[in-house]
Amino acid sequence: MRVQSTMSSKLRIGKLVVIGVGLIGGSFAASLKRANIVERVVGVGRTRRNLAAALRAGIIDEIVADAGRAVRDADLVFIGTPVGQTAAVMARIAPHLPPHAVTTDGGSTKQDVIAHARRLLGGHFARFVPAHPIAGAEKSGASAATGELFHGRTVILVPQPGTAPRAVRLVRSAWEQCGAHVTRLGAREHDEIFAAVSHLPHVVAYALVSALARRRNGRELFGVAGAGLRDTVRIAGSSPEMWRDICLANRTALLTWIDRYLTELKIARRAIRRGDGATLGSIFERARASRAKWLLKAKS
Amino acid sequence: MRVQSTMSSKLRIGKLVVIGVGLIGGSFAASLKRANIVERVVGVGRTRRNLAAALRAGIIDEIVADAGRAVRDADLVFIGTPVGQTAAVMARIAPHLPPHAVTTDGGSTKQDVIAHARRLLGGHFARFVPAHPIAGAEKSGASAATGELFHGRTVILVPQPGTAPRAVRLVRSAWEQCGAHVTRLGAREHDEIFAAVSHLPHVVAYALVSALARRRNGRELFGVAGAGLRDTVRIAGSSPEMWRDICLANRTALLTWIDRYLTELKIARRAIRRGDGATLGSIFERARASRAKWLLKAKS
Repeated sequence: MRVQSTMSSKLRIGKLVVIGVGLIGGSFAASLKRANIVERVVGVGRTRRNLAAALRAGIIDEIVADAGRAVRDADLVFIGTPVGQTAAVMARIAPHLPPHAVTTDGGSTKQDVIAHARRLLGGHFARFVPAHPIAGAEKSGASAATGELFHGRTVILVPQPGTAPRAVRLVRSAWEQCGAHVTRLGAREHDEIFAAVSHLPHVVAYALVSALARRRNGRELFGVAGAGLRDTVRIAGSSPEMWRDICLANRTALLTWIDRYLTELKIARRAIRRGDGATLGSIFERARASRAKWLLKAKS
Repeated sequence: MRVQSTMSSKLRIGKLVVIGVGLIGGSFAASLKRANIVERVVGVGRTRRNLAAALRAGIIDEIVADAGRAVRDADLVFIGTPVGQTAAVMARIAPHLPPHAVTTDGGSTKQDVIAHARRLLGGHFARFVPAHPIAGAEKSGASAATGELFHGRTVILVPQPGTAPRAVRLVRSAWEQCGAHVTRLGAREHDEIFAAVSHLPHVVAYALVSALARRRNGRELFGVAGAGLRDTVRIAGSSPEMWRDICLANRTALLTWIDRYLTELKIARRAIRRGDGATLGSIFERARASRAKWLLKAKS
């Protein structure tokens, strides 16, 4: 294989610090290692066992207990913690970030993360590139991380008016080296869209399993369940802590979408109660047709 | 390959009549043909084009327009229509069923089907074996039918006190020849369990897509959706007519479960509104843990 001399292949990262070596942070490190463009990865996290697993898997080269100490000579810092911890991490690292270091994150919400960064990172805010890789999975932790997770996936960057172009280029290039397609959105637009297509579906799936599980015969119920229920609630296997944080961080947009969904459910409920097949059928038909169009578009 | 002389391999069906040659009815016929235990399959249905596709695919050998005429010399009659048409089909075939013919169905609800059969089949009720193969798919129609659909799947029989043992044996044997595992449940128990694990998840998925699709920017929303949403709403691709009928047929049990689900959603909504991470996290954690236990059990 010949080495191609593209812009992105010139990317070199000396020291990458990953704070929160979970599915996303671990896969980011694994992908950059696989692409052979990072020299050294330092992992920071709460759970020693998870970090030890990442070290054994070769995803990180070193464990450092303290985030502030870890970032002192960092070139790129990736914040991969649940979004509820972002503020604490930023407060901890801000006094120690070197002037050239670029910081980015993988949080599923952007308005709250940007507000924290603006408040806590000081002059480093100009080198903070808010990002969101669309590549969740129902598994979590470093043991689920892989160097292929982002192949063909989309990563959304949400640079702000003051963000340095060099920082955006570095983060874009890193994600491209992970095999991802990089795009941009405004922070508010991002949060409103993901409230609908990601945060609401998680609430829907968690609430469905939780409602089933509250019954004494929950075990019996699940025993006869088919592939339909299995797929519908796959994302209820996602990290409860991560999704609790996301739902609280994106509260306003999510509540709007929960209310729209409740309205739809109540229309369906009333139609069922009244034996109104026309209304019920029209809801089901709208859903089937929209899903079909969406899949067609996704394939093209 | 040697022919094994088991009880089930002795099964021979001269003429099978499938009324409603969709995913389930078509796959039942295709499976029995594949097992080489049926001599002739006659298809009856509303849509000429669908029946012609089934004929071309070799799933049926003949199309007969009228269900009454079709069953005159049938050995086994399979009712594979949406459950809302079951009563009309039974009324049509009852005067023409030969005295030895066994009738069965593939409906997802059983109390309503049994009530119709008791009222409409007269003396033939003793040879009616209510059944429910747990093998849906988001595709429908004869073109989606395959001879492998029931491999390893569960089929639930719901025989009544007056059902002839010979009829139950025939239907059980036919399903076993399709590769299915056959079990039994009471009609009421069946409908309550499936309201929870199948009918409710369909309402949940249809309502989710419908709520998203009602927005002007629905197309844009779906454009960025990831694998999570795709799996969560897979079953919203199912036949709207079939599921409308199921929801109306199993109204009482389904309304109970919709209300339990609404309660759960409202608890989650209130926790999000109040920033109550403990309550929200406990719902998510209950769901994650229950799903994990369920999957473990399903694998064992």
